[in-house]
Amino acid sequence: MKIRILVTSLALAGTSVTWAAVNEPIQPIKVAKVTDPALVELGKKLFFDPRLSKSGFISCNSCHNLSMGGTDNLKTSIGHNWNQGPINAPTVLNASLNIAQFWDGRAKDLQAQAGGPIDNPGEMGSTHALAVEVLQSIPAYVADFKKSFGTEKIAIAQVTKAIAAFEETLVTPNARFDKWLAGDKKALSANELAGYKLFKDSGCVACHNGPAVGGNSYQKMGVVAPYKASSPAEGRFAVTGKDADRFNFKVPTLRNVEMTYPYFHDGAVNTLTEAVDTMGRLQLGKKFSDEENAKIVAFLKTLTGDQPNFKLPALPPSTDSTPKPQPFAAK
Amino acid sequence: MKIRILVTSLALAGTSVTWAAVNEPIQPIKVAKVTDPALVELGKKLFFDPRLSKSGFISCNSCHNLSMGGTDNLKTSIGHNWNQGPINAPTVLNASLNIAQFWDGRAKDLQAQAGGPIDNPGEMGSTHALAVEVLQSIPAYVADFKKSFGTEKIAIAQVTKAIAAFEETLVTPNARFDKWLAGDKKALSANELAGYKLFKDSGCVACHNGPAVGGNSYQKMGVVAPYKASSPAEGRFAVTGKDADRFNFKVPTLRNVEMTYPYFHDGAVNTLTEAVDTMGRLQLGKKFSDEENAKIVAFLKTLTGDQPNFKLPALPPSTDSTPKPQPFAAK
Repeated sequence: MKIRILVTSLALAGTSVTWAAVNEPIQPIKVAKVTDPALVELGKKLFFDPRLSKSGFISCNSCHNLSMGGTDNLKTSIGHNWNQGPINAPTVLNASLNIAQFWDGRAKDLQAQAGGPIDNPGEMGSTHALAVEVLQSIPAYVADFKKSFGTEKIAIAQVTKAIAAFEETLVTPNARFDKWLAGDKKALSANELAGYKLFKDSGCVACHNGPAVGGNSYQKMGVVAPYKASSPAEGRFAVTGKDADRFNFKVPTLRNVEMTYPYFHDGAVNTLTEAVDTMGRLQLGKKFSDEENAKIVAFLKTLTGDQPNFKLPALPPSTDSTPKPQPFAAK
Repeated sequence: MKIRILVTSLALAGTSVTWAAVNEPIQPIKVAKVTDPALVELGKKLFFDPRLSKSGFISCNSCHNLSMGGTDNLKTSIGHNWNQGPINAPTVLNASLNIAQFWDGRAKDLQAQAGGPIDNPGEMGSTHALAVEVLQSIPAYVADFKKSFGTEKIAIAQVTKAIAAFEETLVTPNARFDKWLAGDKKALSANELAGYKLFKDSGCVACHNGPAVGGNSYQKMGVVAPYKASSPAEGRFAVTGKDADRFNFKVPTLRNVEMTYPYFHDGAVNTLTEAVDTMGRLQLGKKFSDEENAKIVAFLKTLTGDQPNFKLPALPPSTDSTPKPQPFAAK
């Protein structure tokens, strides 16, 4: 029996994989393993539920829109009372692969991140206590939390744990580039492959490497020449207080980068062409020709993987005792 | 062969339907017939696409949230620049059954409605020309429109036609009440059935009837006693200019009413209990006892049907030539 399985596996492998890229600086995105489907389903509802915000209008999905590459595609986000956010919203797709969360890495993981926007006055504008009170008033949510946590008393740590569990499923495997890595030589065109070679040979992979093609280190924005940001954000300095960390930001993932415009922490750059040019000049001291730039952009577009693929969740209705949303200041 | 099919049908029918409600003032919601699936899919994308708004942040789904009964569950909606809307957003669920669209019926059908919010400065804040320019710049959309309309030149009438085609699928069959109508006597409890009897005997069905339990006539808000609205809206008068139409509003559907709080055109009432009380006093000159009120509310909750059931759409990314969203006023 054991032998038969082995033979079958080899036979299957033989049908599609005749070659596989090894020793590449980029590794494929793995399919998410769901170990607790009930918790993931609860987290999905919470991710889409605008009742976690003071206004009842803004959900996690408002700024990390899963129809749009896990971003809002805005320079900086819109928050409570149309507040203009200070920084570009990073994609939630493949965020579980990040070294830490937020551009400055101030949250150590997805759970720590999830609590941030809820009680940020300029984002969802609520408080953790109010968000919990809202959920606690909705019997269907109480039942979900009881199922996952064994208690009917909801706590914010459970809310953020559920959201993080859902977010861990938001990986995007099966990009054309990953198919090429797995041995499908036809997955990339000659032009795209030339772009990948340039991407490697020029040094982009020094920071943009690993499965997420980034997300795994902090680097200075503006190595060879300073970056004139439209944002006052100073990156890691805000977390460590060390001068050496000034303008050090988490390197963004390049997975699905054709969907996560505009680019950089200040969202100042609208096109991949301009982003590649800026990165070449400021980080590598290289001026890519138009042809080289186009090749790299062509390669970058092969990093788009499977987008979130699930049914729109139906949210349980509020009850008579649910605290009412407060979108507008009292008059 | 024909006979065998007939026999099978009868046998199947016999297993579940031994009785069916006839001559009831409410009829079941029928499952949507999709005649043009490609157009519906296009409309679904457009419904979820915030790029139809000036800010790039507000989509049809923002105020007609399909996770929340097709509404925003706010008193009045939030629009561009956090504008406070003048009136409660009606549900899009079963809206195809309405006599006309908007509370004052100023749009004759779903297609006519769909264009309204896009270029309303206080809602999506865009223009029809800009919305079309955005879509025209995105090849995947151009291909979709070409498939459905045979031309690569997108027009706003095609945009609204596609959105309407999607919205026509947003019906909610299989409510417990509909199962009762179809002959399943166990679908309703004795209390719910008593509530339905009260709903009929008290005269609620004079306006709330038909498959949508409303939506098919205009009626004066405040028949027996005036309704003190928190909104200055005057209903049909705004459309017809006739004094007799002052404060005449389209009767809202009661389908999924437990999900479409807060209630009335001004969204002033938060609970079904209060809504039933107000309707009894102002429209029928009846003061329901707490027990009667609770029975009617129990019946109303049996009108919740199947909620939208489809995969979250993935939206095609913008291109370098797509007009950029303008969420914030230029500084």
